[in-house]
Amino acid sequence: MSSFENVTVVTKANVYFDGKVTSRTVIFTDGTKKTLGILMPGEYEFGTDLKEIMEIQSGELNVLLPGSSEWISISGEGEFTVPANSKFKLDVKTVSDYICSYISE
Amino acid sequence: MSSFENVTVVTKANVYFDGKVTSRTVIFTDGTKKTLGILMPGEYEFGTDLKEIMEIQSGELNVLLPGSSEWISISGEGEFTVPANSKFKLDVKTVSDYICSYISE
Repeated sequence: MSSFENVTVVTKANVYFDGKVTSRTVIFTDGTKKTLGILMPGEYEFGTDLKEIMEIQSGELNVLLPGSSEWISISGEGEFTVPANSKFKLDVKTVSDYICSYISE
Repeated sequence: MSSFENVTVVTKANVYFDGKVTSRTVIFTDGTKKTLGILMPGEYEFGTDLKEIMEIQSGELNVLLPGSSEWISISGEGEFTVPANSKFKLDVKTVSDYICSYISE
């Protein structure tokens, strides 16, 4: 069972799109941050501040990365990276479980 | 900002009712466990193994505790306790954010 050890977890959830996207913030001892999130089926556009690495742990979804016109399909496990200060779209087909890492550059 | 410090968080979500109820497991250094969860609107019945203390951090919902015929209303913040090995019902009106503590007796 994969886990993050010796971390701080913010008790209150991050809630977006009427709760169809929610996440929990996890802070590591080195000060870096990840969120553990759930995506319900739907279409969403997100903006990034920092570079983000999105690891899909389970689910089925399509991703449109910034500057791209082709959707990437993920089914089961997958990963994609979004540059800082950009926008990306998700078309989520089934409930999806993700880890998002925020990367300061 | 309230948080749990020096904890272990399981990376994969607990997913129930087609994702309308999801939670993350947090394990404390003393071995005790809590989950941080999201309830989407809907009606649910849950069963307990251990005694559970449910703290609602935000949301609007009604609770039917085991052996009771009267629904309790929670709006905003609230708390209720469910005995071990019992069933309770939730009628969730708005997206709700909870902390569930599992108590070994």
